[in-house]
Amino acid sequence: MMGLDAMYIESVVKAALLEDIGSGDITTLLTVPCDATAHATITAKESGVLAGQKLTGAVFQQFSGAVYEPAIPDGSRVEPGDLIGSVSGGARSILTGERTALNFLQQMSGVATLTAKYVDQVKHTKARIVDTRKTTPGLRRLEKYAVCVGGGYNHRFGLDDGILIKDNHIAASGGITAAIKAAKDRAPHTLKIEVEVTNIEQLDEAIRAGADIVMLDNMTLDEMRRAVIKAEGRVPLEASGGVNLDTVRQIAETGVDIISVGALTHSAPALDISLNIGASVDG
Amino acid sequence: MMGLDAMYIESVVKAALLEDIGSGDITTLLTVPCDATAHATITAKESGVLAGQKLTGAVFQQFSGAVYEPAIPDGSRVEPGDLIGSVSGGARSILTGERTALNFLQQMSGVATLTAKYVDQVKHTKARIVDTRKTTPGLRRLEKYAVCVGGGYNHRFGLDDGILIKDNHIAASGGITAAIKAAKDRAPHTLKIEVEVTNIEQLDEAIRAGADIVMLDNMTLDEMRRAVIKAEGRVPLEASGGVNLDTVRQIAETGVDIISVGALTHSAPALDISLNIGASVDG
Amino acid sequence: MMGLDAMYIESVVKAALLEDIGSGDITTLLTVPCDATAHATITAKESGVLAGQKLTGAVFQQFSGAVYEPAIPDGSRVEPGDLIGSVSGGARSILTGERTALNFLQQMSGVATLTAKYVDQVKHTKARIVDTRKTTPGLRRLEKYAVCVGGGYNHRFGLDDGILIKDNHIAASGGITAAIKAAKDRAPHTLKIEVEVTNIEQLDEAIRAGADIVMLDNMTLDEMRRAVIKAEGRVPLEASGGVNLDTVRQIAETGVDIISVGALTHSAPALDISLNIGASVDG
Amino acid sequence: MMGLDAMYIESVVKAALLEDIGSGDITTLLTVPCDATAHATITAKESGVLAGQKLTGAVFQQFSGAVYEPAIPDGSRVEPGDLIGSVSGGARSILTGERTALNFLQQMSGVATLTAKYVDQVKHTKARIVDTRKTTPGLRRLEKYAVCVGGGYNHRFGLDDGILIKDNHIAASGGITAAIKAAKDRAPHTLKIEVEVTNIEQLDEAIRAGADIVMLDNMTLDEMRRAVIKAEGRVPLEASGGVNLDTVRQIAETGVDIISVGALTHSAPALDISLNIGASVDG
Amino acid sequence: MMGLDAMYIESVVKAALLEDIGSGDITTLLTVPCDATAHATITAKESGVLAGQKLTGAVFQQFSGAVYEPAIPDGSRVEPGDLIGSVSGGARSILTGERTALNFLQQMSGVATLTAKYVDQVKHTKARIVDTRKTTPGLRRLEKYAVCVGGGYNHRFGLDDGILIKDNHIAASGGITAAIKAAKDRAPHTLKIEVEVTNIEQLDEAIRAGADIVMLDNMTLDEMRRAVIKAEGRVPLEASGGVNLDTVRQIAETGVDIISVGALTHSAPALDISLNIGASVDG
Amino acid sequence: MMGLDAMYIESVVKAALLEDIGSGDITTLLTVPCDATAHATITAKESGVLAGQKLTGAVFQQFSGAVYEPAIPDGSRVEPGDLIGSVSGGARSILTGERTALNFLQQMSGVATLTAKYVDQVKHTKARIVDTRKTTPGLRRLEKYAVCVGGGYNHRFGLDDGILIKDNHIAASGGITAAIKAAKDRAPHTLKIEVEVTNIEQLDEAIRAGADIVMLDNMTLDEMRRAVIKAEGRVPLEASGGVNLDTVRQIAETGVDIISVGALTHSAPALDISLNIGASVDG
Repeated sequence: MMGLDAMYIESVVKAALLEDIGSGDITTLLTVPCDATAHATITAKESGVLAGQKLTGAVFQQFSGAVYEPAIPDGSRVEPGDLIGSVSGGARSILTGERTALNFLQQMSGVATLTAKYVDQVKHTKARIVDTRKTTPGLRRLEKYAVCVGGGYNHRFGLDDGILIKDNHIAASGGITAAIKAAKDRAPHTLKIEVEVTNIEQLDEAIRAGADIVMLDNMTLDEMRRAVIKAEGRVPLEASGGVNLDTVRQIAETGVDIISVGALTHSAPALDISLNIGASVDG
Repeated sequence: MMGLDAMYIESVVKAALLEDIGSGDITTLLTVPCDATAHATITAKESGVLAGQKLTGAVFQQFSGAVYEPAIPDGSRVEPGDLIGSVSGGARSILTGERTALNFLQQMSGVATLTAKYVDQVKHTKARIVDTRKTTPGLRRLEKYAVCVGGGYNHRFGLDDGILIKDNHIAASGGITAAIKAAKDRAPHTLKIEVEVTNIEQLDEAIRAGADIVMLDNMTLDEMRRAVIKAEGRVPLEASGGVNLDTVRQIAETGVDIISVGALTHSAPALDISLNIGASVDG
Repeated sequence: MMGLDAMYIESVVKAALLEDIGSGDITTLLTVPCDATAHATITAKESGVLAGQKLTGAVFQQFSGAVYEPAIPDGSRVEPGDLIGSVSGGARSILTGERTALNFLQQMSGVATLTAKYVDQVKHTKARIVDTRKTTPGLRRLEKYAVCVGGGYNHRFGLDDGILIKDNHIAASGGITAAIKAAKDRAPHTLKIEVEVTNIEQLDEAIRAGADIVMLDNMTLDEMRRAVIKAEGRVPLEASGGVNLDTVRQIAETGVDIISVGALTHSAPALDISLNIGASVDG
Repeated sequence: MMGLDAMYIESVVKAALLEDIGSGDITTLLTVPCDATAHATITAKESGVLAGQKLTGAVFQQFSGAVYEPAIPDGSRVEPGDLIGSVSGGARSILTGERTALNFLQQMSGVATLTAKYVDQVKHTKARIVDTRKTTPGLRRLEKYAVCVGGGYNHRFGLDDGILIKDNHIAASGGITAAIKAAKDRAPHTLKIEVEVTNIEQLDEAIRAGADIVMLDNMTLDEMRRAVIKAEGRVPLEASGGVNLDTVRQIAETGVDIISVGALTHSAPALDISLNIGASVDG
Repeated sequence: MMGLDAMYIESVVKAALLEDIGSGDITTLLTVPCDATAHATITAKESGVLAGQKLTGAVFQQFSGAVYEPAIPDGSRVEPGDLIGSVSGGARSILTGERTALNFLQQMSGVATLTAKYVDQVKHTKARIVDTRKTTPGLRRLEKYAVCVGGGYNHRFGLDDGILIKDNHIAASGGITAAIKAAKDRAPHTLKIEVEVTNIEQLDEAIRAGADIVMLDNMTLDEMRRAVIKAEGRVPLEASGGVNLDTVRQIAETGVDIISVGALTHSAPALDISLNIGASVDG
Repeated sequence: MMGLDAMYIESVVKAALLEDIGSGDITTLLTVPCDATAHATITAKESGVLAGQKLTGAVFQQFSGAVYEPAIPDGSRVEPGDLIGSVSGGARSILTGERTALNFLQQMSGVATLTAKYVDQVKHTKARIVDTRKTTPGLRRLEKYAVCVGGGYNHRFGLDDGILIKDNHIAASGGITAAIKAAKDRAPHTLKIEVEVTNIEQLDEAIRAGADIVMLDNMTLDEMRRAVIKAEGRVPLEASGGVNLDTVRQIAETGVDIISVGALTHSAPALDISLNIGASVDG
C-alpha cells in the first residue's frame, strides 16, 4: 500500500488551511478566549472505511498547542458512532482547523468506502480493482492512497510513469504494431507497455507485437470472455468502460485480471464524519 | 454570479497539468509525431448543467498551438450527444491535455448539475439553495462558482469573510447574547453576524441580541415552521442539516429563506463528458 | 482584535529574510566567530504604541539558537528607553536578523501609533476609526492587525469580503437602487452592502433600497450632520475623504458612526526602535 | 539608475492583486456588466515626483483587455491635476485593478518625492543622498528604485552585496584592524569594505587598515568636519544617524561624501494620486 | 526521445535568471543605453553534441524584445566554430541573459556529448546506454533529456516510476523471492520489477520469482557472460558499476542488454560554447 | 568562508527530494516494513576534499526518525574508505533519502576537490583561485560554498553584487573611460568596479579612469607579466581565460592577484562516495 510522505501532506494541508482561513477565523477570534482549551472527538456518522488519519493529524499540527490522537488506523471499517480520534488543546485551534480536517477525512474515507464496495463484489475472483487518472485536480495522490486503503490497486499516477497506448496513439503511429515498436524502441526499460484494444483481432496483434498489458475498451461481457480465452494468460487483461457496482461482478467473472473504475475517485460521495467539542470549553 | 479570474484559473490549471504530466506524457511523445495535428470535440454523455468552459480553455492554452472553442456557455443544460466545444491544433497537445481538461469539466459540471436538481425542488418557494465550506481542499472557488452556475448561491468563502457563531463559540463566550456582543464590538462593520440556534428560545435571543441571520441547526420541519413564525421576517433564516433531495422541498416550504447543502460540493458525482479526436490525425 | 496566524507570519518573515540576506550576511560571516553568543535588548526611542512582537519572535526563530523574549505585549504604550524585548543566542543570528526584525516592528508600531492618535481624537464620540485598502502591497494583514492594536477597527480586507458600491458601480448598473438590487439578488447572504453617496438624496435612495451601510463621500461637516439626521440611525454612516488629524474630531462630532482613514496605513511614519547588543560578544 | 526587471514586477504585482482580490471583486462582478468598457485617467492630487509607471502598467496587464498608457515618465515632477496616464478597456478590469495600481504608484511616488526633497537640500554640495536597508519587507527593490528616481543613490541592497562592519562586528573580531583584515582575507574581491566608526581615532585606524569607505556614526557636525579633514580624501565618508530635512544641509556642508537616510523608505508619506473613470461606462 | 514541456522549461529558466540577476544586472544597466540593440551569435568552441536549444530560446524569451533563432537542432554534432544560433534585440537583454543561456547550453551539451562517446563504444552491440538517478539536484529532467539527445536511453526518472529492488530491500523483506512477491502483490500493474543481484544464483532466483529485469551489480566480465548464458533471454540484463569509457565496450560485448552509467550526468564536463556580440552595439 | 543558511538548505533539499521521490519510493514502501530500523555509514571511495555535510544532514532531517551524524567536518581531506558520517533510524527513511543525500555530497565534494587541486598549484604564489558565474543553474550558492571549502575564493555571486565591465559594455558606452565614469556616477558606493581589458593600453586607461580591479582577458603569459609590471600594484589583476591545471601554475607565477576558473564549477567530476547499510535491517 502506497504511503503519503510528510512533505506532501504538509504542503496540501497548508494550502487547504490557507484557502479556508484566509485573513483569519474572525468568528473564533472574536468569541473564544485565546487561552481557552478544549477536547474534541471525531466520530463516524455512517458506515464505511476510514482514510486520512495522517491528514487530520497534520491539520491540527499546524496549530501550536493542539494534538490529534487517532483511535484507529486507516483502513478500519467504521460504523455510526465509532470513535475515529480525538484532539486536545487550544479551543481556537480546534475550531479553526475543524472544517479542513473533516474535509480531508470525509473525502478520503468516501473514496476508500466506495473502493471497498467494488472490491467486495469481486473478491471471489482474481480481478484487481484499480483506479484511473479521473481524479480531483491537485489531490490525485490522496485519492490514490485512499483507493489502496479501500483494498484497491493503483493504475499509473500520471502520464509519466506508465505507457498506455490508446486509439489515437495507434492512429497517429500507423497501427498497433508500429505504436508498440515505437514505444519499445525508446521508452525507459522499466516501464510496461499497455495497449487499448476494441476487438479480438487487435488483442491478438497487441500480444504478438509485445504488449505487456492489454486494456479491453468497452467490450461486452461476451467479448471479454473471448479475449480471456484468446490471451491464454500471456498478458494481463484490463477491463475498462461501463463499470459500475451493478456490472463489476460479472465483468470480474469473465476472467479479466484488472478492472479500472473511474468512479472510485470522480464520483465517491463523502463519508459523513463529525467533530464534537466537549461540553466544557475552559478559559 | 461570481466569476473566476484569469490568474486563479491559470494557477490551478498549471498545478493540475504538472500533477498529471510529471516528467512527460511518455506515450504521446513516443507514438505521435511532433508535427501531427488533430481536431477533437467534447460532448456530453449524460444530462446535466455545464460548468468549466474557462478551465478547459486554460488547459489547452498551456500548450502552444492548441485552441479551444466553446460551443455553449457555462450554465447550459446538456443532453447526451450535445456538443460542448472543440479543440484544434497539435495532436500531442490535445492528447496530453485531454484528461486534465475533462477532469475539471466533469467535476464542475457535476456540482452544477446537482445544484440544479436542488434548485429545481425549491423553485416554487423563496428559498435560496446555498453551498457550505464542505468543499474539496484546493478547489473551493471552482466548486462555489459551479454552485452559482447551477442556480445556487454562495455562503461565505472561508472563515474570514463572514461571521458564523456556532454552539462552541456560544459556549466559549458565555451565551448567545455575549457572543453577538463580542462580535459586534470588534468585527469589521461590513460583515453580517450569523448565529446557529437549535430551538425557538435561542432564536429569540439571537434576534434580540442583533443577529443579522439565524441558522436553524437540524430542526424538524415543525420547528422550522415555528421559527419562521417567530422570526416574523426580522432576520433571514437558514436551514442546515439533514438536507437531501428527498427533504429539501418540504424544508423550503416551511418558509425558511436559505437552505445550505454540503452535498452540493462534497458528494456530487462527476458528469460524464468525453473528448473524441477526429478519425484522421495528420502528420 | 484580529490575530495573525503562525503560517502567515512564517511566510512573510521568511520572504523578508530572503530579501535581506540573499546569498549570505557576508560581513557577519567574516567577522563574527560561529560560536560567539550575545544578548541584545530592543528598546523604544520615541513614544508610541507597540505592534509586531510575534513578527520579531518569528524572525529570530528562523535562526537555530536565538530566542526572543518579549517584555511587553502588543498594544503597550512605550516611551523612549522602554524595554520592548530581548534576544539571546548566537551572535551571528542576532546580527543577521536584526534589521528585518526592526523593519517589521518599526513599521507596524508606526501604524499602531498613528491609529492611536486618531482614536484619541474621537474617543468622546461613538465613531469608530477604520482602515482602508490603501495598504502596502503584500503587508495588508500586518497593517490591519496594527490598526486594531492601535485601537482602530478594520474595514473589509479585500474585494472579496464586503460589498462596497461606488459611483462607477452605480453608473454601470443604472442607479443606486438598481445596483443594490443586483447585489442583493446574487451576493452571499453573509455580506453587508455598503453604498457610497455624495448627497442627501442619494443617501435616502440607498436606505430605501436596502443598503446596510452608507459611505458619505467627501461631504462637508454640514452635509454630514444633515445625513446623520436623515438616516435616523437606520443604517450606520461612514465618513470618507479629507480625514486627517486636524479634521477627524469635528467629523466624529457630526454623529457619523465610522470614519475611514487611508493615512493609517499609507502614510504612517516608522516608530523609532533600536536593538542594542551587550558590550561583550563572547566567542 | 537601477531598473526593475519584468519578472520581478510581474511577481510583486500578482501577489498584490491576489491579496486584494482574493476570491473575487464581488461588488464589480455583481454591478458591472462583463462587456462594459471604460476609460479612466490617473492624475496627481499633490506636488511630487512620480515613480511606478511600470507597476501601474503591469497591474492592468494582468487583466485581458485593459491597456495602460503612461502620459509622463518616472522621475517627472507633477503638480495637482497633472495627467499621469490613462487606462482603457473593460470596466470590470479597471475597477478591480484600481486600488492595487494606485497603492504602488502612491507609495513609490511618496519615496521618490521625499528623496527629491533631501537631494534638493544638498545639491550645492558633493554629497550623495543614499538609502538604507530600513525598507518595507518585500518591497525593497521597488523602494530603492524609487530612491533613484528621486535623485538619490542606493546603498547596498542586502547583507550579501556589500561589507559593512559595525560596532558589534568590530567587538566580535577584536578590533577594527582585525575585522578589516578578516574581511580582506576571505571576501570576494569585488566587494568594498565599509567600516562604521564613532570617533577620529577609529577613523584613522580604519583608513590605515585598508577600509574602502568609512561610515561616521551619529557624529556631531563638528566631528564630521574634523573627520573630513583627517580623511584627506583617501576614502569616502558616509554620514549616518540623526539625518532629517532640518539637518541634512548642514551635514552635507561638512564635506562628507555620502549621507544615508532611513526615512526615505521607512517614513515617506504616500503621494496623493487618483483614478477617475469617465462619465460614461458603456455596456 | 523524451521532450521537455514548456511549463517546466519556463520554471527552470526563471529560477536560473532570478539566481543570476538578483536585484539587477547593475553593470549593464549603468553602461548600456536602454534602447541599444545588438545581434549576437552562439558558436561551438569544441567538438560535441548539442543539447539545450529550447532552454536558450526560453532564456531570451523572458526579455521582451530579444529573439533567439537556433541554427541547428538538438542532437547535431558540432565542431569548433560551428554556428549554434543567433539572438537579436535589445543589447541589455542579450548581455543580461548571456551567462544563463550558456550555462544551460554548455551543461546539457556536455551530458549529450559524453553520452554519445559511450554510445559510440557499444554501437556494434545490442546494449543500450542508460542514465541513473545520479543527477544534479533540480535538473534531472534536463539531464535525462540530454542523455536521449546523445543517443542514450533513460532509466527511471525517480523513485516513483519504476521498481528497483536492491540488496537492502531484499534483506528487509526476507530474500529475493519474498521481495518480488511483495512488489507484485501491491504495485501498480504498469510498472516493471527490476532486481539487483550479485551472483548467478541470485539471478536464477530472481528470474524464477518473476523479475522483469535483472541488474548485475559490479560483476566481472566473466560473471556477466555467464549471467547472459543463464538468463537465456528470458529477462533483460542491466550491467551496473565500474562502467567507464575504457570498460564499456567489453561490458557491452558480454551480451548484456542495458548498461547504466552514472558518469553521464554526474561527471560530464561542460561543452565549451560562446556568445559573441557583433562589433556594433547600436544605441 | 561563506556559510549556507538553514532556510536556503531546506528549500534546495526539499526540491531535490520532491524531484526524486515524486509520488513515493514505491520499492521501499513495498519491500521494507514501516517499523524497520537501520544504521548506515557514508564513506569515501576516492581521495578528495569533503563538502556538503549540512546538506546530508538536512536530507535525512526531512524524514522523521532518521538522524545523521557527521564524522568529519567539511574541508577534510578524505581517502578511500574514510568514514564521512553515519545515519541511524527508520530503514525506509534511509533508503529513500540515500540517493539525494549522495548526489549533493558527491557533487559538492567534486567541486571542493577540483578547487583544491588548483589551489595546490598556486600556493607558492600570492594568487587567489576564484570561481565564476559558470555554475549549475539553481545550485550556485552550493557550488560557491564548495569552492571556499576547497580553499578557493568567490567572485561575485550574480549580476547584482559586483560591477564587471566587459568588452560589450565598453563598446556600448563609448570606451573604457566613459564606461567607468558611468558606473562611478550611479553605482552604489559599496561596489567595486572591475574592467576587462585585452592589452596593456586598455589596462593603463582602466587604471587611470579609476577601475578598482582589472581583468586580463585571455592574455599570454608574457602579456600578463607586462601587465603586472605596468599596474605597479595600483589595482589587483585578475587572469581569465585558458586556465586549466596545466597552465594555472605559470599564470600564477606571472604575479597576477586573482585567477578565475570556470571549470571549478562547470566541469568538476563528482567525488565517489557511497552509503552502506549495516547487514541487519531490523523490523
